[in-house]
Amino acid sequence: MLIHLSSWPEIDARLKDTKTVIVPIGSNEQHGPTGLLGTDWMCPEIIAHAAEKTDDSLIVAPTFNIGMAQHHLAFAGTISLRPSTFMAAITDWVSSLSRHGFERIYFLNGHGGNVATIEATFSEIYAEWSFVEEQPPMVLKLRNWWDLPGVTGLCNRLFPTGHGSHATPSEIAVTQAAYPDRIKTADYSPKIAPSGPIRDALDYRARFPDGRIGSDPAQASPAKGQEIIDLAAAALIRDVAEFSAEVRP
Amino acid sequence: MLIHLSSWPEIDARLKDTKTVIVPIGSNEQHGPTGLLGTDWMCPEIIAHAAEKTDDSLIVAPTFNIGMAQHHLAFAGTISLRPSTFMAAITDWVSSLSRHGFERIYFLNGHGGNVATIEATFSEIYAEWSFVEEQPPMVLKLRNWWDLPGVTGLCNRLFPTGHGSHATPSEIAVTQAAYPDRIKTADYSPKIAPSGPIRDALDYRARFPDGRIGSDPAQASPAKGQEIIDLAAAALIRDVAEFSAEVRP
Amino acid sequence: MLIHLSSWPEIDARLKDTKTVIVPIGSNEQHGPTGLLGTDWMCPEIIAHAAEKTDDSLIVAPTFNIGMAQHHLAFAGTISLRPSTFMAAITDWVSSLSRHGFERIYFLNGHGGNVATIEATFSEIYAEWSFVEEQPPMVLKLRNWWDLPGVTGLCNRLFPTGHGSHATPSEIAVTQAAYPDRIKTADYSPKIAPSGPIRDALDYRARFPDGRIGSDPAQASPAKGQEIIDLAAAALIRDVAEFSAEVRP
Amino acid sequence: MLIHLSSWPEIDARLKDTKTVIVPIGSNEQHGPTGLLGTDWMCPEIIAHAAEKTDDSLIVAPTFNIGMAQHHLAFAGTISLRPSTFMAAITDWVSSLSRHGFERIYFLNGHGGNVATIEATFSEIYAEWSFVEEQPPMVLKLRNWWDLPGVTGLCNRLFPTGHGSHATPSEIAVTQAAYPDRIKTADYSPKIAPSGPIRDALDYRARFPDGRIGSDPAQASPAKGQEIIDLAAAALIRDVAEFSAEVRP
Amino acid sequence: MLIHLSSWPEIDARLKDTKTVIVPIGSNEQHGPTGLLGTDWMCPEIIAHAAEKTDDSLIVAPTFNIGMAQHHLAFAGTISLRPSTFMAAITDWVSSLSRHGFERIYFLNGHGGNVATIEATFSEIYAEWSFVEEQPPMVLKLRNWWDLPGVTGLCNRLFPTGHGSHATPSEIAVTQAAYPDRIKTADYSPKIAPSGPIRDALDYRARFPDGRIGSDPAQASPAKGQEIIDLAAAALIRDVAEFSAEVRP
Amino acid sequence: MLIHLSSWPEIDARLKDTKTVIVPIGSNEQHGPTGLLGTDWMCPEIIAHAAEKTDDSLIVAPTFNIGMAQHHLAFAGTISLRPSTFMAAITDWVSSLSRHGFERIYFLNGHGGNVATIEATFSEIYAEWSFVEEQPPMVLKLRNWWDLPGVTGLCNRLFPTGHGSHATPSEIAVTQAAYPDRIKTADYSPKIAPSGPIRDALDYRARFPDGRIGSDPAQASPAKGQEIIDLAAAALIRDVAEFSAEVRP
Repeated sequence: MLIHLSSWPEIDARLKDTKTVIVPIGSNEQHGPTGLLGTDWMCPEIIAHAAEKTDDSLIVAPTFNIGMAQHHLAFAGTISLRPSTFMAAITDWVSSLSRHGFERIYFLNGHGGNVATIEATFSEIYAEWSFVEEQPPMVLKLRNWWDLPGVTGLCNRLFPTGHGSHATPSEIAVTQAAYPDRIKTADYSPKIAPSGPIRDALDYRARFPDGRIGSDPAQASPAKGQEIIDLAAAALIRDVAEFSAEVRP
Repeated sequence: MLIHLSSWPEIDARLKDTKTVIVPIGSNEQHGPTGLLGTDWMCPEIIAHAAEKTDDSLIVAPTFNIGMAQHHLAFAGTISLRPSTFMAAITDWVSSLSRHGFERIYFLNGHGGNVATIEATFSEIYAEWSFVEEQPPMVLKLRNWWDLPGVTGLCNRLFPTGHGSHATPSEIAVTQAAYPDRIKTADYSPKIAPSGPIRDALDYRARFPDGRIGSDPAQASPAKGQEIIDLAAAALIRDVAEFSAEVRP
Repeated sequence: MLIHLSSWPEIDARLKDTKTVIVPIGSNEQHGPTGLLGTDWMCPEIIAHAAEKTDDSLIVAPTFNIGMAQHHLAFAGTISLRPSTFMAAITDWVSSLSRHGFERIYFLNGHGGNVATIEATFSEIYAEWSFVEEQPPMVLKLRNWWDLPGVTGLCNRLFPTGHGSHATPSEIAVTQAAYPDRIKTADYSPKIAPSGPIRDALDYRARFPDGRIGSDPAQASPAKGQEIIDLAAAALIRDVAEFSAEVRP
Repeated sequence: MLIHLSSWPEIDARLKDTKTVIVPIGSNEQHGPTGLLGTDWMCPEIIAHAAEKTDDSLIVAPTFNIGMAQHHLAFAGTISLRPSTFMAAITDWVSSLSRHGFERIYFLNGHGGNVATIEATFSEIYAEWSFVEEQPPMVLKLRNWWDLPGVTGLCNRLFPTGHGSHATPSEIAVTQAAYPDRIKTADYSPKIAPSGPIRDALDYRARFPDGRIGSDPAQASPAKGQEIIDLAAAALIRDVAEFSAEVRP
Repeated sequence: MLIHLSSWPEIDARLKDTKTVIVPIGSNEQHGPTGLLGTDWMCPEIIAHAAEKTDDSLIVAPTFNIGMAQHHLAFAGTISLRPSTFMAAITDWVSSLSRHGFERIYFLNGHGGNVATIEATFSEIYAEWSFVEEQPPMVLKLRNWWDLPGVTGLCNRLFPTGHGSHATPSEIAVTQAAYPDRIKTADYSPKIAPSGPIRDALDYRARFPDGRIGSDPAQASPAKGQEIIDLAAAALIRDVAEFSAEVRP
Repeated sequence: MLIHLSSWPEIDARLKDTKTVIVPIGSNEQHGPTGLLGTDWMCPEIIAHAAEKTDDSLIVAPTFNIGMAQHHLAFAGTISLRPSTFMAAITDWVSSLSRHGFERIYFLNGHGGNVATIEATFSEIYAEWSFVEEQPPMVLKLRNWWDLPGVTGLCNRLFPTGHGSHATPSEIAVTQAAYPDRIKTADYSPKIAPSGPIRDALDYRARFPDGRIGSDPAQASPAKGQEIIDLAAAALIRDVAEFSAEVRP
């Protein structure tokens, strides 16, 4: 059940049985010469929607499509929230969903650069309750889609070299499977991009001139992307089920 | 050109000619017994994407899908930002787009409840420059899709009674045209919903028990929706062209 | 009863019968070559105090005299709050008044540029309650003095042309009636000022070099001002009575 | 020259010679059984306006009428800003005035409870410049009206006992001189109110049941008030002149 | 009992009898040519730890070592919080300690520049309760170590001239007693530093080129420091006892 | 060189050669039945001070002793900042140090719970520069002391089982070496504490009743602690040297 394509009475009815909601969350940021700017929010959306197609008992929120991408701002099309803004927005999403009775909020994340801020936000939210020694009405979970059981293993098998950490062939492949008419090509030079630390936008552009980090996206294909999607969607269904079944102490 | 389906070099190249970007912005909130929760962000997205299909010179950002919907929070599935959070997030979107060289940022809005906060945000952004008597690098414009030239006239012709102001037949029709497999029906009672002031969530639910205000959405149809989309998309193209051509004093 | 000229036991006693308080709110900003910088906060103060003189059962708070005037900052004497500051201040006023038992807080506004931010603030305040699905202890209302029943009609009759939207002859006239020794004159050129969009301070000054928008303030006179005050004060008394009598759902 | 009763060209012209502006600042809060709720903002306003009448070269801003009065909130009519809000608002006033070319901003304060927050705000403002090692464009000064040279001495002579620190006979007298038709009386019990620490609102009300601290306001009279006003206004003129003449290192 | 050198069960047990906690608070900022940068946080720490050594029933929190020192930022090694940050941090310390059952929180302060912001913070904290007319669970107290009964008298006897207000011989002496191997010397010129107002960092450095205000630190000695510490520690024990014994109204 | 035990001229002189500063950062929070509440800020302080003793060219700031410990608030003595407060405070430390000319700021961290918020803060700081496409004046680095090269290997060798992740024998040992007179003992039950996710304070206490996670602190000894300190201090010297030598692109 996709929230945005449902009516409120439908969500209301479903809340009698299901207290878990999945929020695809990512970023809109450069993904090298050929990657789509929406890659990091479309990947978790693609996977969550695929899972929902298989198992309609899943409730999926609209996609949280802008995250923490300050380091990519020297590349056109990147849109970033400051961490403090990102925290406020996540907090309001959680407050809204929690008010309706969702007791487990599962963020399926598509951007490594979001992780620290999302975790800091969880602490900010929990702190409200911890300072008054009350139990919060909801449990929060962050899962990167590539950390779903089995996914990293598959990606490593598909792309044993040149996977890298930004504009990776696996994320490019996922978007190719979902948007085959938007596949772009380029002569990557070097074939495998360099690696290094991530700091501010100018530093990033100087280190990684075409935007990639450690990756060779030329290896991506729609078929490989579909394989990843299928595995990830199945893993997501199981992971959410476990999270929903978890007993609070 | 949809930013999220483009690569950064494509946006970079286009920025040589085009300095205007369209941001579809709305809300995810209840729309009565049959309206989709995503109606208010999907309508401007549908119209903007339709316009972009016609005129590929338009640059369309990802959709800003969560807005100010505190009054709808007593209905499941609504997700709202506090106005202060909404302001921070819009500001960061503007800062990001402006940095890339977009000098005209056009918000195509789908939610009346967003208007005050978006305008307050424009003032907050402009104030940064006004306090130091410098010219801001960008001009901001807010346009509700129903205020595009001709659109309200058409909606009034299509729905002379029972248009109302929330869960209107025109917005329902737009989503029916775009998502025909998600059309829902209900026995509306009363046929035309009541009207009244908008305050907090409990007050809202007490006044408007099924969520509608003044509307009879049963009049919606995909064909009427398509008619609205076609007119609105054409009007959007002209409106954006005028905005882009405007000379700053 | 003017709060600032009363003692706390007087307010305490009156709160047994009256739960409504009027807050005159405006802005301190340029009003063209002849208008007083205080025009926008003095107009609602003048009208509210006139009403209170007639009907002592009204409770009038001190005047909130600085609002959102970033666009006027290129003219000396303008003082503006950022929208975010304005929101925080209004919120604290409301919290204070609400704590004393005022259940209806009526803002009589004198500045069009305040409207968006005041409405955003109402949403910010209501959101606190909406997120926890509780009824707020107070109802908030915004009324521009020119929107009091009958007032715009009178202004249009008095000034059929050249009323405009900033430094209007009607607001100038109101201050002339109240401060006859502060009437100033100038050779306006052009007689009727231009119109256009409102953005940042430099843009504003370039478009509207002497500060007026669309107005010919030379038409103002103390007598016309008094006529407006009399009508507006009477309308205010009725409007507040209606607001106080409104039943919450 | 009172800013709110002037036009922008008048302020503009005056700024050629005068770079100092006086901001009367106070609080709207209970002042015992007979004191006016507006006492703390009306006193500095009364004194500043009296000085301006004598010496028209003074530029006086509108009165900042709501301050930090959280401890008085258990008494009806009190309106308080949180310190954080108060700081934001003062900052925006300073930014506005500084932009116009005012290089010396002199706050004439009427409320002891404001002092800490105003000083913290000065540090917050200066910090913006200190962190970047630049000279701020303005110098800020806080002066309580009772600390104007000679004033405390006069008050002690007029009221050798029972002056106290809240709802003092001197501040009551000042308002009596200015608003003789609003003089109120009561049987104070005890004649001289108790003293003690100031904490939260309930603690305050428990310690000081009628709102006074250490004072016997029955000693106030309009004549004594006028004597204080005259002395304070003259001292203000000299104090501002000294501040304006001060050479920055 | 020093919290940071205790285990949680030890604090838990002690909380049965003691509801008061001492927080040494200061600043890390320049203290003239010879003073240690940590002087202002080490002095209250030294005194509080000396008191705790004598009377183990005292509970002492870790030292809050960075305060409001924007005016010292033109001297290397100074670290300052903005007042708004300082307020947020103090608030969180208070919330944490209060949650554990500490009902009296006693800040032993070592920096005059902290006073306004700490007091503003107390008001910010109390305001949370005052706005809802509830009693806060804790009482807050600020005491500068030099205001402990008897201390200023002793300092005046030890240093009848050239005590000054920054980099004073008394605070230098206290650190000399505690860190005798870190005593530094210099040829002070002038022997007694100038005095004047405190504003931003550049203004400060221009007025007080070597950082001192009105002081002659050459008079300091470890023996004098020890005398001050002994007196202050004893006075602290009595002051805290009085504070703990105070009955809330 | 410890900043707090130096004078400003000493830091000033040293800044000619050294542009790197080490900030020990941690948390004050429960560490099981026997661990000191200060463990997480004392460990990096102990290691950094040990390194500075060996290599006086290191510049060490005062210790940032309160971090993000909301999950420990159900245990007495824990003091936590909200993530948003923590971010503001770190930002001000960085602004202060950067102003003096420190171009590399190295945070030696002692608390795993700080990592996400510190990294989010780095992004918040960098974002200021990224949004305007300027190079920030400083580079930031976070290093947990247990991630210094070789340290985790040593800890695993010393404590092959029952190391766990909170109140670990290695951190307890480090504090035992530094504060041998504060060694505490207890009958741990179970010997090795349970493991699980970290959420809010009540959840934490329910899962980990005595505060430990996965650890058996009984294995700690001062000798083992000294071994860790020696290795970590040496590794820190090398790590800082590498960081200082790093060439910016």
